[in-house]
Amino acid sequence: MHAHLPQVPPVDRALAPALQARIDAKTKPVGSLGRLEGLALRLGLVQGSLSPVLSAPHVLVCAGDHGAARAGVSAYPQEVTWQMVENFLAGGAAINALARAAGMALVVADAGVNHDFGPRPGLVGAKVAMGTASYLEGPAMDADQRDAAMAHGAALVGVLAEAGCNVLGFGEMGIGNTASASLITHCLTGAPLADCVGRGTGLDDAGLARKRALLERALAAWPERTDDPLEVLARFGGFEIAMLAGAMLAAARDRMVLLIDGFIVTAALLAAQRIAPAILDYCVFAHRSDEAGHAVQLRHLGAEPLLDLGLRLGEGTGAALAYPLLQAACAFLREMASFDSAGVSGKGG
Amino acid sequence: MHAHLPQVPPVDRALAPALQARIDAKTKPVGSLGRLEGLALRLGLVQGSLSPVLSAPHVLVCAGDHGAARAGVSAYPQEVTWQMVENFLAGGAAINALARAAGMALVVADAGVNHDFGPRPGLVGAKVAMGTASYLEGPAMDADQRDAAMAHGAALVGVLAEAGCNVLGFGEMGIGNTASASLITHCLTGAPLADCVGRGTGLDDAGLARKRALLERALAAWPERTDDPLEVLARFGGFEIAMLAGAMLAAARDRMVLLIDGFIVTAALLAAQRIAPAILDYCVFAHRSDEAGHAVQLRHLGAEPLLDLGLRLGEGTGAALAYPLLQAACAFLREMASFDSAGVSGKGG
Repeated sequence: MHAHLPQVPPVDRALAPALQARIDAKTKPVGSLGRLEGLALRLGLVQGSLSPVLSAPHVLVCAGDHGAARAGVSAYPQEVTWQMVENFLAGGAAINALARAAGMALVVADAGVNHDFGPRPGLVGAKVAMGTASYLEGPAMDADQRDAAMAHGAALVGVLAEAGCNVLGFGEMGIGNTASASLITHCLTGAPLADCVGRGTGLDDAGLARKRALLERALAAWPERTDDPLEVLARFGGFEIAMLAGAMLAAARDRMVLLIDGFIVTAALLAAQRIAPAILDYCVFAHRSDEAGHAVQLRHLGAEPLLDLGLRLGEGTGAALAYPLLQAACAFLREMASFDSAGVSGKGG
Repeated sequence: MHAHLPQVPPVDRALAPALQARIDAKTKPVGSLGRLEGLALRLGLVQGSLSPVLSAPHVLVCAGDHGAARAGVSAYPQEVTWQMVENFLAGGAAINALARAAGMALVVADAGVNHDFGPRPGLVGAKVAMGTASYLEGPAMDADQRDAAMAHGAALVGVLAEAGCNVLGFGEMGIGNTASASLITHCLTGAPLADCVGRGTGLDDAGLARKRALLERALAAWPERTDDPLEVLARFGGFEIAMLAGAMLAAARDRMVLLIDGFIVTAALLAAQRIAPAILDYCVFAHRSDEAGHAVQLRHLGAEPLLDLGLRLGEGTGAALAYPLLQAACAFLREMASFDSAGVSGKGG
């Protein structure tokens, strides 16, 4: 099944006892670094190393437009998608500032924005079409388009891996994509649609009610409904979400650490995880989003994010904010002395 | 009152509306950066600037010994204090690794460790005595010793300010100092002693019961009990805690951002805040410690920390982990474009 997609083996847990012993021998009370210790263990297992090192960290932001956006599922007009891509390229968006602050490089990909950027330095051309079709009337994309978007994501990750990248944050831009992510989350988790729908970039109560009604209609317009992840991606996905899912599968195959942002990125992960369950071994969940459906996703995946800062911006901003915690986890594991090496007395002396 | 201590004026809030307008004009939905936005506002107010810049960030770790430690309030023997100071100087402790990872310089001060280090490069000599007396039998220190420790802290902050430091994380080392912090917290918040006492570096149930009984005895041995912060510091304080309180007052006077670590550091802040309530304007609470009494302190101060990672190590480790969030807050405020400057359409187009 899914033989054309990147294959993801589970991490080898044979190293876990040695990693845990190394963590416990550090000059600190056992367990006193809290979640940083579990994080260090995870990074060690992903890299198969007692001294994991993060190299060439990137944030990949995939952008795409949604046919359904014109029906009013967002507080912002569709042209904001391409305008924000321009903002990324000019360096003025939140993810530019936060990735710079974290020492991560930013890669922006046009997965299917409804705008002709022309050839542009700094923009990865991966456009499948000028935005998806509206899922209110049929599938957002056909199978070939979905496969193309996923392949673009996988190919781009291959380039990053060649460049030495072993930790990749995921982000997105696309007016209307919280609606798309809500539908995907509903279909892949089985949670009630109402629990999966939130205010996105800032709908008021009336806007939220309209969005919920539209998404009910979108579901009703799909009589042959299934929970096959590839079918769900094609029916409701944005190109940016499909591209992210393909990129995630390839990143795990290449033994990268996957730094998962918020609601839309986690919708892509839900699809990737259904395709390759072992992908979760490679994932670090950056933050708990303020967008309502994120809690549903996290519960479904059994995930506990590192940060809880009330973010609801997307773009990979949560991933960039969490990245220093990964660096800190590697730093204590690599650099701290042990009780023995430092000549410090142990407990209960 | 307290005329010999650094005076702390409240921040001027006149700049708040302009700061908030600048935050809201950035190319993101209003409020979508969550707590990072309130953090940016705070940093701007502390610096009196629409473009706050963090410079020469330091973590100050004050170390001291406690006479009561020999009565069995800790899981570790007292000599671990000086051994850990040696570990700091050799670069092998958790705070060394985490401060390096965060790009913060580390300053270690001997406020009163029961060990003769001799003159040592990298160690600030601020020793008041070879550890405090035991509060089970009388005051831990006399008024002159307390004032000396506080003055050492203030003087050291003056040196850091001269060097351009405008953001200071606080940390500590001292076997037995969670017990001291528990007593201070009880006296200055009025919360039941039992709620203020935790396992410290890792007491088991029997050890915790013994610690609670000892601390009840310590309270009973102080018939002239008061909630005057200076009296409480002298009765139960460690030299490192008094030095931290003096350093905090001076740091706020010098308009630094104070990055508050966990339970022991917050005990010092409780005293400083009773002396100069406006000090809270300058404080950022780094993390929610796993040590039981920290919740009592945070509730008393109305504080909401940035991180919740189950840390219970001290040394300023939580402050170092949170520092990148302060950098991120400054970065978005300084570097992000506005809707106008980036030509991005607003909401509801």
